[in-house]
Amino acid sequence: MNREQALFANDAFYLAFSQRDADAMAALWAEQATVSCVHPGWPALVGREEVLGSWQRILANPDAPTVECHQPEALLLPGQLAQVICYEQIEQQVLTASNWFLLEAGQARLIHHQASPCAHPPALEPARPRTIQ
Amino acid sequence: MNREQALFANDAFYLAFSQRDADAMAALWAEQATVSCVHPGWPALVGREEVLGSWQRILANPDAPTVECHQPEALLLPGQLAQVICYEQIEQQVLTASNWFLLEAGQARLIHHQASPCAHPPALEPARPRTIQ
Repeated sequence: MNREQALFANDAFYLAFSQRDADAMAALWAEQATVSCVHPGWPALVGREEVLGSWQRILANPDAPTVECHQPEALLLPGQLAQVICYEQIEQQVLTASNWFLLEAGQARLIHHQASPCAHPPALEPARPRTIQ
Repeated sequence: MNREQALFANDAFYLAFSQRDADAMAALWAEQATVSCVHPGWPALVGREEVLGSWQRILANPDAPTVECHQPEALLLPGQLAQVICYEQIEQQVLTASNWFLLEAGQARLIHHQASPCAHPPALEPARPRTIQ
C-alpha cells in the first residue's frame, strides 16, 4: 500500500460517513481481518457484525451531525498496512482519529477506527477537496 | 507475532506505565517504524521524539494516578503486527485503549497507543496477574 491508496480510502470513509451511505461504509471495511472500532465515549466493538451494526445505526440517525476530516497524514507499515491520523470536526467539537487500513483484494480496507475528543486541537486547515469521483 | 507475544508486550507497557519507568517505556517503542500516540484529550503525537517526550513528562509527574489494564484482547494482523484492545482504569475513570505492536528485532514493540474516555464501560474483571518476571 502506498500513501495515496491510504489517503484515498480515508477520504472514501469520510465521504460514506458524511453521505450516510451504509452500503459504501460496509464495502470499506475488511472482510478477512478482524475489524474493530472505538467510537467517542464507547467501549471497543470487535468483528464486522458489531462494527457495521454500529455504523448502520449512526448513519440511519437523521439528527447525526456532519463530519469533516482535516489534516490526514498516512504512516505506512509492513504487511500492506497503513495508519491515517487525522482530525474530525463534528460541529464545534474536534476529535483526534486514527484509521487503520489493510490491503485486501487490491483495495485498502479499514480494520480499525478510533476517534477521541481532543481538548486542545491544532489549528485546522480547510478540509481537503474530495478526490472521489 | 503470536497472541502471547502481543499480550506480554502489552503487560510490559502497563508495568512501565505503573512503575513510572521511562527507560523501560523507551525500550518498548519501535525504533524503525514511525510511532504515534494519542493520549486522552490530546492531539496526535508522531515520531519517537514527540511520543517519548510525552511519556517522560507523564512518568515524571509525581501526582500521576495509577493505571490498571483490564481485559486485554489481542488481534493478529499480517506483517508481524498485532493490536491489543483493553480497558484502562485510572482512578474512577475507564478508558478504551488500543495498543499496536510490530515485531522488531524479535521483540514486539509499540507503534501506536490511543486511549479514549469510555462513558459506559463493560463490567471490568480484575486486572490480569503480571506475567513479567
